[in-house]
Amino acid sequence: MIKKVLIGILCSAAVLTLGILIGHFGITKSSGSAPSWVRDVAKDVDESLVEKFLSEVDNIQIQENLRELTKVPHMATTAGDEQTVKFMLKRWQDPESGLDQAWREEYMVYLSFPDPKNPNSVTVGESLILQTKKILRWFSPYAAYSPAGHPKGKLVYANQGKPSDYELLNRTIDLNGTIAITRYGGAGRAAKAINAAPYGIIGVLVYTDPLDINDGLMSDINETYPHSWYLPPSGVERGSFKNHYGDMLTPYLAAKEETYRIPAKNVTGIPPIPIQPIGFEDAYILICELGGEAAPSEWQGSFSCTYNFGGPGFKHTSTFNNSDVKLDIFNYEEVRSSANVMGVIRGSVEPDRYVIYGNHRDSWVHGAIDPSSGTSVMLELSRVLGKMVKQGKWRPRRSIIFGSWGAEEFGLIGSAEYTEQYFTKLSERTVAYINVDIAVFANATLRASGMPSVQNVIFTAAKQVDAPGLDSMSVYDNWIQYANKTSPAHGTIPRVGYLSGAGSDYAAFVHYLGITSMDISYTYDRSKTNARIYPAYHTAYDTFDYASKFIDPGFTSHQATGRTAGNILIRLADSLVLPLNCSDYAESLEEYLKTAIDLYQHQLKARNISMGKNKTFNNAPDFYPEMNQNALYSRKTHDKSDNSLPLKVRMINDQLMLLDRAFLNPLAFPDKYGYRHVIWASSSAGQPTFPGLADAYDKAESSGQSNDWDKVHYHLSVLSQAIDGAAHMLLDVI
Amino acid sequence: MIKKVLIGILCSAAVLTLGILIGHFGITKSSGSAPSWVRDVAKDVDESLVEKFLSEVDNIQIQENLRELTKVPHMATTAGDEQTVKFMLKRWQDPESGLDQAWREEYMVYLSFPDPKNPNSVTVGESLILQTKKILRWFSPYAAYSPAGHPKGKLVYANQGKPSDYELLNRTIDLNGTIAITRYGGAGRAAKAINAAPYGIIGVLVYTDPLDINDGLMSDINETYPHSWYLPPSGVERGSFKNHYGDMLTPYLAAKEETYRIPAKNVTGIPPIPIQPIGFEDAYILICELGGEAAPSEWQGSFSCTYNFGGPGFKHTSTFNNSDVKLDIFNYEEVRSSANVMGVIRGSVEPDRYVIYGNHRDSWVHGAIDPSSGTSVMLELSRVLGKMVKQGKWRPRRSIIFGSWGAEEFGLIGSAEYTEQYFTKLSERTVAYINVDIAVFANATLRASGMPSVQNVIFTAAKQVDAPGLDSMSVYDNWIQYANKTSPAHGTIPRVGYLSGAGSDYAAFVHYLGITSMDISYTYDRSKTNARIYPAYHTAYDTFDYASKFIDPGFTSHQATGRTAGNILIRLADSLVLPLNCSDYAESLEEYLKTAIDLYQHQLKARNISMGKNKTFNNAPDFYPEMNQNALYSRKTHDKSDNSLPLKVRMINDQLMLLDRAFLNPLAFPDKYGYRHVIWASSSAGQPTFPGLADAYDKAESSGQSNDWDKVHYHLSVLSQAIDGAAHMLLDVI
Repeated sequence: MIKKVLIGILCSAAVLTLGILIGHFGITKSSGSAPSWVRDVAKDVDESLVEKFLSEVDNIQIQENLRELTKVPHMATTAGDEQTVKFMLKRWQDPESGLDQAWREEYMVYLSFPDPKNPNSVTVGESLILQTKKILRWFSPYAAYSPAGHPKGKLVYANQGKPSDYELLNRTIDLNGTIAITRYGGAGRAAKAINAAPYGIIGVLVYTDPLDINDGLMSDINETYPHSWYLPPSGVERGSFKNHYGDMLTPYLAAKEETYRIPAKNVTGIPPIPIQPIGFEDAYILICELGGEAAPSEWQGSFSCTYNFGGPGFKHTSTFNNSDVKLDIFNYEEVRSSANVMGVIRGSVEPDRYVIYGNHRDSWVHGAIDPSSGTSVMLELSRVLGKMVKQGKWRPRRSIIFGSWGAEEFGLIGSAEYTEQYFTKLSERTVAYINVDIAVFANATLRASGMPSVQNVIFTAAKQVDAPGLDSMSVYDNWIQYANKTSPAHGTIPRVGYLSGAGSDYAAFVHYLGITSMDISYTYDRSKTNARIYPAYHTAYDTFDYASKFIDPGFTSHQATGRTAGNILIRLADSLVLPLNCSDYAESLEEYLKTAIDLYQHQLKARNISMGKNKTFNNAPDFYPEMNQNALYSRKTHDKSDNSLPLKVRMINDQLMLLDRAFLNPLAFPDKYGYRHVIWASSSAGQPTFPGLADAYDKAESSGQSNDWDKVHYHLSVLSQAIDGAAHMLLDVI
Repeated sequence: MIKKVLIGILCSAAVLTLGILIGHFGITKSSGSAPSWVRDVAKDVDESLVEKFLSEVDNIQIQENLRELTKVPHMATTAGDEQTVKFMLKRWQDPESGLDQAWREEYMVYLSFPDPKNPNSVTVGESLILQTKKILRWFSPYAAYSPAGHPKGKLVYANQGKPSDYELLNRTIDLNGTIAITRYGGAGRAAKAINAAPYGIIGVLVYTDPLDINDGLMSDINETYPHSWYLPPSGVERGSFKNHYGDMLTPYLAAKEETYRIPAKNVTGIPPIPIQPIGFEDAYILICELGGEAAPSEWQGSFSCTYNFGGPGFKHTSTFNNSDVKLDIFNYEEVRSSANVMGVIRGSVEPDRYVIYGNHRDSWVHGAIDPSSGTSVMLELSRVLGKMVKQGKWRPRRSIIFGSWGAEEFGLIGSAEYTEQYFTKLSERTVAYINVDIAVFANATLRASGMPSVQNVIFTAAKQVDAPGLDSMSVYDNWIQYANKTSPAHGTIPRVGYLSGAGSDYAAFVHYLGITSMDISYTYDRSKTNARIYPAYHTAYDTFDYASKFIDPGFTSHQATGRTAGNILIRLADSLVLPLNCSDYAESLEEYLKTAIDLYQHQLKARNISMGKNKTFNNAPDFYPEMNQNALYSRKTHDKSDNSLPLKVRMINDQLMLLDRAFLNPLAFPDKYGYRHVIWASSSAGQPTFPGLADAYDKAESSGQSNDWDKVHYHLSVLSQAIDGAAHMLLDVI
């Protein structure tokens, strides 16, 4: 059903490539006595300006931005957050190096906080031996959206809190009334509690095992920060414990003051039972005292003891003996005003086309790496670009919008509300979204994810930037050593990931709006560490000191990320023809298709569902004979002497800009909030192929029910229609 | 919540009006030695070409088109339909007067037919005294999508089959096991059976009362056709008995061969019990013999007897005595291949902008008026325009797409599948859709419905066309005498209706795609007739003879409709700045708002739901200070000597084109298939105001439940966000 369609995309991509040549060569650069706008509309990227930009992006400026941004903790909607709002506005409204305009936009969003008067605590037996670390009033670690409650029961160890973990545990122990301790990883934060509740578990603890974050190291005497980048025993990873992104009380509506809010009791995708994060110093005490059988080897972490399931509860020999564990959780939910800070540079030729560059501003504590590394880079880009604009040396062809999103840590709320509020305007006008959240995880190599069509502009940009700390090697050449793949069209190239999840603010742009997006950072040498993420992630140790000593001394990786992302930004804003390559998209779709055929075709054939034929599209050339003629025509007009219309370039650009929009289907995933992109939606099947198809197939195969097989057929049709629709966007316009 | 927003729209409409002035005057008409495209992109409508077009639209050509189209019955997917497909293709592929390209596109759609071997029948007692008229094998009257079945029971009269009708009847009679006879009007076709079933009614008859269609006349000796336009006693109105438009087995997916189809048993919105249409000669026999109490006066029709409820069943004194009525219905459903015929004229400057002009091709029998009057006009327009193109005298700025839709009579299927298949392409590129289905209901005056933004171009066009049969009076001046209203901005003007229903193929364009649309025809002098519609509607009497003798002798009203619609088409295709007036849209929204405030504000205030304030938008000027500056800037560039960019005009046109798209919300009406436009969706509340709000309010007021009041608040928020979004599309682009 979808095979021919993909080939169709490839073909039309070829047509477009020719179209791109028209764009580049067809418009004469000087037009004699023509009006000045004739020259303006034909202007392409100015490479000397790119060079100037690259040379002006300054590592020390980034360092000082970070120092300023991390002065105080700035959790969403707190006084520290307000301080960063004012700082962003001041910088973006600076008369020498600010943007054309900058302003704040408020949303009233549903957040969750610990009670400053009653810190959450964990008790064993009668004595309060574990109390979650209080770094500062208001910032004691907690699980946002965990309900308040005071569950008390025998402790069990449930590995990562995956469904299979609880299932296995339940075979050995009666879990009713127990408290489960789990480690981070393997399952989403909220899922650890959601998966637990059906077994009668009444509370959950979650900690970071040194195996997963510290390459096994755990001594704060000489191993962990401040001796290295590793997490100290007292570090606690906070986080948002919810499954859906955006404000949960105002689904699909911008959370303005008077917006209708669903009753809080109707919110889904949050923990039904109390859950609390703790540091591994506390987890160690609890886990190593557990009784019962030894857990399987995959459940073992780095502690110097065997991880047992729990009796439930502790060993007889333990000092805890048969004590219960009690959680006292005082979290409460509140609707609060959270601000996005927005800034724009107005486009000169096509002000109604937007390139959006964004990052969140809120942190859990000081948030030096997450998110202030990204914000420091964004401020440096906007300073360099803003200065060129203020000095009259440059104005981009298209408009640039900078977004400093609020309340991302609570589930990408600021960016999601923004896309809900400006849905049509952003859909119709946005060329691309660039996300730089954690700018530097580590200083080994560039990392990029995005729609396949942005691969090429990322490569172009990365080739022009020097790799930090390496003599005469580009970011691109360095990158290809760390992560590469073989492309049928390009040979060996760096591997660009996909944005199928909702890990940062790109989510609403990718999944809800269907805007071509990318996420850029500097990251690890994976041969040197197995850390799940940089060790201080979401803890109070993510500070300026930590960042400047152990993540990126000298801030040169920040600089490289900024140069690369800024170069991409300029190219997207200034290129005459948008640097989006749809044939790279087709290559990825072909890979997905091949996987789908390998995995599913046999079974589907047996059920009379065909994957290999799409009559409509196959017949299209007969219906539209001129399509092929036009491909030829395009080839002919490659001739430089032929004058072409600026509207022809706009037409091609609109085809490129809107390609991803054709993949949207607002009804395809009724159970996944905000997921409309049928190629990149999240998937639980874990297969590198079309997500709706993969998940439906998994379900049908396990249930065997005929209506589940109907769903597989339905998702094939959704996919076929979406890809067909995308191909129609790329074919000759009429 | 929405008041200020509307004022905002008005303001931004003013900004746009200034923008329009830039477009008209800013681009110099000659540019010296500039490339030729500099002149081409600045070209506006050529009024001499409009005149030439008007003079060439020929009434006799239309008459001959109609004669050809109505030679044989052409119900969807029959041999007669195929004949019309070939005829359209021949005309649109004509080398002298055809289009650039024309082709057919097939969909496999779910239809319903009578069994040619077993004609449906209605029996009283033991003798077959009523047999539905068999006009021709395959075209015996039937209710499409009525299930087959053989219900037998006592007859009752249920007026129009509205919920209130059955409710009233049920107070007097036990309806279990009865057959209800109903008259057309008051409720949808399928609704008459859907409303009946819950009362235990097992079959339904439906007929056209002479009161509703014939101004009371019913004698075929001297009163009805062929003596006049009135329906003869044997005439039977056929129709599609379904609530949702489009193919019912493939919701939101184009019905291609391999598309997933839902099981037919899951189809909703069709009659759960057999229903059959009959002529009033048969209805007369049945109704005048009914026993029981006299029905209320509003239930009485034109028959020369009292309409009784039924005993149930007939009077004791009737020859039918206590006989049952039996329906023998042999209808069956089938998936069949139905064709759209498509034709295009490629645009010269903006080929990627479409003006779509369409009508369905299929009829119930010969379908002279419905739909062939419209098709005859469309063919004449395409002949005149095609000839100009073939002769090299003209090529529109934008592309023109002609659509001859299939299977409209079965629920707008061809046009709906087309919009599903090409969703993104059509959404992103279509400037407007013009529907001319029944071109001439009667020859008194023009009738037009559409989004308020098209009012002005309809007026412009109608002022340039002579009213048929009237000396030196324009279609516009004639129209204003029949239907007018007072506009705050324009004074007395003809009344243009809204497209809030799904009466013809505009439905998918308006409600699913959110494309600015209009529906044009010539119609009645309402002071001369109360006929629900032209009397031969959907009967075998709708023939060429009928049309040419009683609807439009001389075909001058067809000509006037064609000239007006064609003039609109040219203006939409050729105008430099699109002739869509968003301030007229704002005027209609203000009226809707005023009604909403009058009707609902008091109650909503009492429930703490505010309608009068929208903080976001109210504050917008502070956020975007440049907006107002730009209004000033626009005013300044009114100056003719200032050169402007062609991309600036494109930008304004995109704002106008996409305005309606901002009103779409795919989740607002989960129970209404294909309805996404929050301003024009269908509504059962019967109030001239926002449909979702009105329906939710009605429900909440009658149930009093708090979750129903929540729905009212929700719809206010949906509306507020949509209008806000539309305003953002009109404001300065960045």
